[in-house]
Amino acid sequence: MIKLAVDMMGSDKGPETLAQSVLKYVKEHRDVSFTCFGDEKILSPLFAGQERVEVVNTTEIIPMEVKPLDFLRKRDSSMYKAIQAVQEEQCQGVVSAGSTGGFISGATILLRNIEGVTRAGLCAAFPTADKKKAAVILDVGANNVNTGADLVCFAKMGSIYAREILHVEHPQVYTLSNGVEEGKGTDEVVDAYHQMKEMNFPGFMGNSEAREVLDGKHDVIVTTGFAGNILLKSTEGTAGLMNSLIKKAFTKNLFTKIGYLLSKKGFQEMKENMNYKKYGGAILMGVNGVAVKGHGNSDSYAFYNAIDVAVRMVKSDIVEKIRSTLKND
Amino acid sequence: MIKLAVDMMGSDKGPETLAQSVLKYVKEHRDVSFTCFGDEKILSPLFAGQERVEVVNTTEIIPMEVKPLDFLRKRDSSMYKAIQAVQEEQCQGVVSAGSTGGFISGATILLRNIEGVTRAGLCAAFPTADKKKAAVILDVGANNVNTGADLVCFAKMGSIYAREILHVEHPQVYTLSNGVEEGKGTDEVVDAYHQMKEMNFPGFMGNSEAREVLDGKHDVIVTTGFAGNILLKSTEGTAGLMNSLIKKAFTKNLFTKIGYLLSKKGFQEMKENMNYKKYGGAILMGVNGVAVKGHGNSDSYAFYNAIDVAVRMVKSDIVEKIRSTLKND
Repeated sequence: MIKLAVDMMGSDKGPETLAQSVLKYVKEHRDVSFTCFGDEKILSPLFAGQERVEVVNTTEIIPMEVKPLDFLRKRDSSMYKAIQAVQEEQCQGVVSAGSTGGFISGATILLRNIEGVTRAGLCAAFPTADKKKAAVILDVGANNVNTGADLVCFAKMGSIYAREILHVEHPQVYTLSNGVEEGKGTDEVVDAYHQMKEMNFPGFMGNSEAREVLDGKHDVIVTTGFAGNILLKSTEGTAGLMNSLIKKAFTKNLFTKIGYLLSKKGFQEMKENMNYKKYGGAILMGVNGVAVKGHGNSDSYAFYNAIDVAVRMVKSDIVEKIRSTLKND
Repeated sequence: MIKLAVDMMGSDKGPETLAQSVLKYVKEHRDVSFTCFGDEKILSPLFAGQERVEVVNTTEIIPMEVKPLDFLRKRDSSMYKAIQAVQEEQCQGVVSAGSTGGFISGATILLRNIEGVTRAGLCAAFPTADKKKAAVILDVGANNVNTGADLVCFAKMGSIYAREILHVEHPQVYTLSNGVEEGKGTDEVVDAYHQMKEMNFPGFMGNSEAREVLDGKHDVIVTTGFAGNILLKSTEGTAGLMNSLIKKAFTKNLFTKIGYLLSKKGFQEMKENMNYKKYGGAILMGVNGVAVKGHGNSDSYAFYNAIDVAVRMVKSDIVEKIRSTLKND
């Protein structure tokens, strides 16, 4: 039986939405159980009669903007307790849709980095031009600055993720840079390129420009947290802008509205292709435990997928695989 | 009479395409003349009988990937000679669709930075959700790393550009970061934020995340060259991906094809809105001269607009305005 800790508080949509995901998940998966942390007055009625869902009462909530020290002070928060449940091995993984900063500090402080991991990295799967393939990008924001050694570590963890969770047998790995040639980019990119070339890093293909990362041929892209965050958010922003323009184009006049009805099927497929929710949020890779961070405004579908990623990570024993890979290097 | 130097060689589309833009421009603007640098065997027939187009023969071409020193060795290249014409004040501005790296090194070496400019920055105007507004972003790739002082300098130059060329009376200026709160981001971002706050920088609004920069409310966004390049290229890449998905959606079956015919008008408007070609390439801000770099694969419409940006920059005396602004600070 897999047991997951869920931080039920602090998401934009409220605990009811997250509860729907948990309920659907227990119903569909007999080998998974949950410990749900939060206000029991709200949670207990939501999970009444559920054998595989335990509610643990907490009295505090981590706000969206939180400093690491403030996190440590809120020891009776749903997020703290949920992460602690993994630290104390009562649960095998933790899922939260609360503050990203809080979750990263909390998981890093309580679970600590796996031996050999220089820095934990937040890893996100991006939709690509090939609807069957995702691009794994890390770090998308756990850090500001990173060293070349950090990027190499991200490449190792990202490759394991692509293999174990996305079933890409031989992932192709790239360093994100401002040009494809060797020597392009900031010092840490040049250093990481050099190191991976020297060690014949499996699947290392060199630099990739941000224009190419979503073409469906890039499996793993490593970058510093700051640049990765720019990449993540500009992709989201541009896709959002294009979506609003598509909507505007279809609502221009009666003809365009009829046009929409006729071409709806094609656009539903497009929507499905670009749906980041199917990848269920971001994973903090490199800590001693499975830690998945759903989007702050996750609906029940997105949070269900965040849970699913955590379960698949537990099943594939990914933390142990990272541990042994980094130990052997 | 405004006189522009044009590097006719080194673009992906060949000199014939660029010649079309020059010919259209001289025809439509009686106060502009051109000195076109390149292979006279190709150029002279293209400009035969044109009074306001002078052809200067050059024997070398700067390749797409060029190192600064290699640029200096190719002194009879069309790019070198075109930039030199501005340096020697024979022309008031230079336009090229050749190697970006070559153009940046060349313009920086030959024209030198304006006094008080810590680093020149490549400035690009991005389409936004508001079709009447562009977002001015710099640096998008002249540099790798930048200091806080560089970012402040970019903010000054970007504000002048927004005012003089895009006619935004009171541009709102942002630092690109991984969170909106003060203190978020890498050291140089935090430093720039602090400096601009201290000096009451006109229109400084704080940090912006990459998700928001194209919402039509951000006039000027300053960033290091590396992060700006990621932003530029991921925006291009995501927009390109979405466009190919839209095409796919409309060609799915007979119904979607008819749907396209009906909604075509709305999508043409969208295409026009997102058309980066209307902004005519990127401008190297901070050197002693007007230097505009058209996209390597500029068609005649895009290159025409690159010429037009250069002409407007000359007319508004933007270099002198940067000079006096930075002198007075």
